[in-house]
Amino acid sequence: MKSEIRLLGIDDSPFTFRDKYVTVIGTILRGGVYLEGVLKRQVKIDGKDATQICTDMIKNTRHRRQLKSMLLDGVTLGGFNVVDIEKIFIKTGLPIITFTRDEPDIKKIEDALKKHFSDWEDRLDLIKKGKMHEIKTKHNPIYIKFVGLNLEEAKEIIKISTIRGVVPEPIRMAHLIASGIKRGESYGKA
Amino acid sequence: MKSEIRLLGIDDSPFTFRDKYVTVIGTILRGGVYLEGVLKRQVKIDGKDATQICTDMIKNTRHRRQLKSMLLDGVTLGGFNVVDIEKIFIKTGLPIITFTRDEPDIKKIEDALKKHFSDWEDRLDLIKKGKMHEIKTKHNPIYIKFVGLNLEEAKEIIKISTIRGVVPEPIRMAHLIASGIKRGESYGKA
Repeated sequence: MKSEIRLLGIDDSPFTFRDKYVTVIGTILRGGVYLEGVLKRQVKIDGKDATQICTDMIKNTRHRRQLKSMLLDGVTLGGFNVVDIEKIFIKTGLPIITFTRDEPDIKKIEDALKKHFSDWEDRLDLIKKGKMHEIKTKHNPIYIKFVGLNLEEAKEIIKISTIRGVVPEPIRMAHLIASGIKRGESYGKA
Repeated sequence: MKSEIRLLGIDDSPFTFRDKYVTVIGTILRGGVYLEGVLKRQVKIDGKDATQICTDMIKNTRHRRQLKSMLLDGVTLGGFNVVDIEKIFIKTGLPIITFTRDEPDIKKIEDALKKHFSDWEDRLDLIKKGKMHEIKTKHNPIYIKFVGLNLEEAKEIIKISTIRGVVPEPIRMAHLIASGIKRGESYGKA
């Protein structure tokens, strides 16, 4: 795999209970590390438009043809607005990787969904969809799902795009931007 | 100078004639290239608060103690909201560098100021304040002003923080973020 690949990283802003929409930031990085573009959209908090918005970001960026993969921080944006990565791959042809630092607690998620959503089963099915892989790193392990590529390719993309710690740069930068523009100063590590 | 210095880069969003305020983005980069923080503020278009807002960004970021210099794209934010870099340096103690790709056309600026501002002389004086230095690069020359450091130090900071082309990374990234969050997708090169 060429080390000069372009990757799109996605993360959402923090939000409060008063907000209806949350800002979603996309970063486009050359070689996994050099910022070449910044995208912005909004998704509805606990809505159902995250899959569509991610698809739109990919389809409409001027960097579309250079993109090799999209990296997503978790499988939800704006609360429980679940992203169907298989659907995005089918609609765009772009391989997708989701990344988390912690293995999701499915029981806890199920309880939260049951409390708030009449369509909780659909959302839970989407969240559970796809095999989760534990990837060893020099630090703590990370957890990924992917579609449109194989495990070796996914691991290589993560390796190319990770500089310090365990968070790939496209996601780390998207997080810093998304939190910085909401709060006035960024915080945390995605 | 340590290559792991932290730099703050500032740029503003594009705006239309309907806007009253413009978003100002600050990026904090370690070693001049590795994004560690994102700041956001607003300044009034053609207002007089840019100096105060820049001072506030510097004083209130959690990265304050690590910062070695602030780099600014030009000497104005939000139209003709002129930044007084000497005042910022006096108030914060942080050395400031302004950067432009083109030598400003002072006659043209004077004409525009006269047309729109009763205090045009004050604004023009601020814009003209300080010596402009032409710096040779492998590409086109760039133009800088600075306060709180000497020419050699300013040149070294620019060298450390420039990867491709002539725009230092803190300003280049601030530009991509500021334009991306306003337009949905970033454009241009600062």
